[in-house]
Amino acid sequence: MTTLGIAGAGQLGRMMTLAAAPLGIRTVMLDPSRDACGQRFGDHLVADFDDLEAMASLAQQVDVATFEFENIPPESVAKLAEQVPVHPPAEALATARDRWAEKSLFRDLDIPLPPVARIDSQEDLDQAVREIGLPAVLKTRTLGYDGKGQKVLRDQDDVAGAHAELGALPCVLEGFVNFSQEVSCLGVRTAKGQMRFYDLVVNEHDAGILFRSQPAPGHRLQSLAEDYTGRVMEHLNYVGVMAFEFFCVEGQLLANEIAPRVHNSGHWTIEGARTSQFENHVRAVCGLPLGSTETREAVVMLNVYGERPNVTELLSIPGAAWHDYEKVPRPGRKIGHITLHAADMRRLQGIEQAARACLRNQRS
Amino acid sequence: MTTLGIAGAGQLGRMMTLAAAPLGIRTVMLDPSRDACGQRFGDHLVADFDDLEAMASLAQQVDVATFEFENIPPESVAKLAEQVPVHPPAEALATARDRWAEKSLFRDLDIPLPPVARIDSQEDLDQAVREIGLPAVLKTRTLGYDGKGQKVLRDQDDVAGAHAELGALPCVLEGFVNFSQEVSCLGVRTAKGQMRFYDLVVNEHDAGILFRSQPAPGHRLQSLAEDYTGRVMEHLNYVGVMAFEFFCVEGQLLANEIAPRVHNSGHWTIEGARTSQFENHVRAVCGLPLGSTETREAVVMLNVYGERPNVTELLSIPGAAWHDYEKVPRPGRKIGHITLHAADMRRLQGIEQAARACLRNQRS
Repeated sequence: MTTLGIAGAGQLGRMMTLAAAPLGIRTVMLDPSRDACGQRFGDHLVADFDDLEAMASLAQQVDVATFEFENIPPESVAKLAEQVPVHPPAEALATARDRWAEKSLFRDLDIPLPPVARIDSQEDLDQAVREIGLPAVLKTRTLGYDGKGQKVLRDQDDVAGAHAELGALPCVLEGFVNFSQEVSCLGVRTAKGQMRFYDLVVNEHDAGILFRSQPAPGHRLQSLAEDYTGRVMEHLNYVGVMAFEFFCVEGQLLANEIAPRVHNSGHWTIEGARTSQFENHVRAVCGLPLGSTETREAVVMLNVYGERPNVTELLSIPGAAWHDYEKVPRPGRKIGHITLHAADMRRLQGIEQAARACLRNQRS
Repeated sequence: MTTLGIAGAGQLGRMMTLAAAPLGIRTVMLDPSRDACGQRFGDHLVADFDDLEAMASLAQQVDVATFEFENIPPESVAKLAEQVPVHPPAEALATARDRWAEKSLFRDLDIPLPPVARIDSQEDLDQAVREIGLPAVLKTRTLGYDGKGQKVLRDQDDVAGAHAELGALPCVLEGFVNFSQEVSCLGVRTAKGQMRFYDLVVNEHDAGILFRSQPAPGHRLQSLAEDYTGRVMEHLNYVGVMAFEFFCVEGQLLANEIAPRVHNSGHWTIEGARTSQFENHVRAVCGLPLGSTETREAVVMLNVYGERPNVTELLSIPGAAWHDYEKVPRPGRKIGHITLHAADMRRLQGIEQAARACLRNQRS
């Protein structure tokens, strides 16, 4: 039996663990939170991500290790890698952690991207605004997510002092793009270089926060997205699932960002694909062959923030699957997701409408 | 959060626990085996099923309780029921445990069944053989499963001393039926009386042991099977999933037996139905609405006995799902199952053939 180590025991570690279980693969998760929502189903080491002794202890208990998120200190990744294979590789985490490294990689690989500039000072920012124009978004190079660590610059008043507002940290300035759609491409790659891709996912955000994801089989940008995603995975010698987010602009793809892990926009794959992103990530990392990424039927996923839905009403809807992360609800906190699946799009639309009516305090 | 108690932590308790997880429902399993394969994912009380103190302790830790199998001592069921709701009810367990009680119930409910007689002595047996004829099967009334506790009587030589051979226990004699098909109907019922049924499952046995199960949407005996299964569930005021096995004889159904629990012939529902039998059992027992029992795509399940398949080859097959129960392999021991799913029957046949080639030491 293989034992898989996971740095992180949030909902991604939890769903990886649940996907690993039928394969007879056990997990040991390292997470600083004693109440981390994944820890019920695998073993749990309570330790900080920068605790090198704990990382060494995790490595001793497992055959191979992976990550639930990219913000693991490089020293911790290196510590793990001294003792067991670690997937995806450190370089993938380092690239995804740093917006400038990420954008530079896209450029190096000839993947089109929106205008971007590296900002290390207010002078850099003033210069970049002259070149890129407004509106634009100033983002810290590291540790930003879900709209945090960033500031939208609409006019010159917003520009003045903006770099200091973000703590004078290393930043990037990204030009606004007038996109028609935001899509993500989920790819998975084995150590032997086998690659598979899920159908492109159309994502709807609300104030920078993912609200709804739906695969779009037959999307005309599918093969282009696979090409770009494959380039990045091959360059990084990537193993596991990677998500690549794009803007669709005038029939082309502009690279937004990569996530070196299973991704929220792939949660629909649990019910909606022949093999879920979680199972395929576990398979790739553990050296097993990849499963089919084919989409089954019509499917859509809705995130749930802040408050549980009316579960009794929700579960009355045919084809509604509720994924409760067992987190304490707090305003704005992602506490679960809903997947809706049906034999065809017409039926799916009906049940999605019914499911949205079960969400409280949210877009519906 | 609801906590569900389960008597038993084998593969059925394990799969119930994995189905309960996304709903935020936790389980506590009671099982005498420290290594029981379900115990990794829920809490585990190590105790014998006749340990009344342990049953009381289980009841204290949970909101509601259920069973993984029917051979729980009635005193233990009663102990649980003193403190928490217990589903399915004690009467359902008692009926399913005792072949004579079961057959008598079928008769009372006007459900056709093969010839049967109650046998308490060799004289009863001799008399019954004269009435029913040979071949016939002598079975102990209780504790028989997978071909154990029974003897096939082909001629008068087999009849002599047969009752003593089965330990002179209370038995039934069942006449042979010349069936064209063995099918099972999986039904689920809530405390409020809501009922749902899965598509009839065609089962293939080998020496009394289930080998292959496949749902048959549109089977012409579907509504009759639902009628019979519904009669039994309503009579027993049943809550949860129940399996009813039938013989198809000359276009009619003859009752074989019921199982008051999730059932091996329903394992295909994990990937193949809109809501799995495990999730629907948990929903019913925990007072949640039932999910759709609709079959998704083409699907078939193969049991795996004795030895693990070639997992690497198996997982290379698109639409192959491997369920490893993490049991120590022993000759004849059921250690997992394979579900195959595809968009249509033609593709399914191809992948089933490939999957059978991965099974070792088994029919292929």
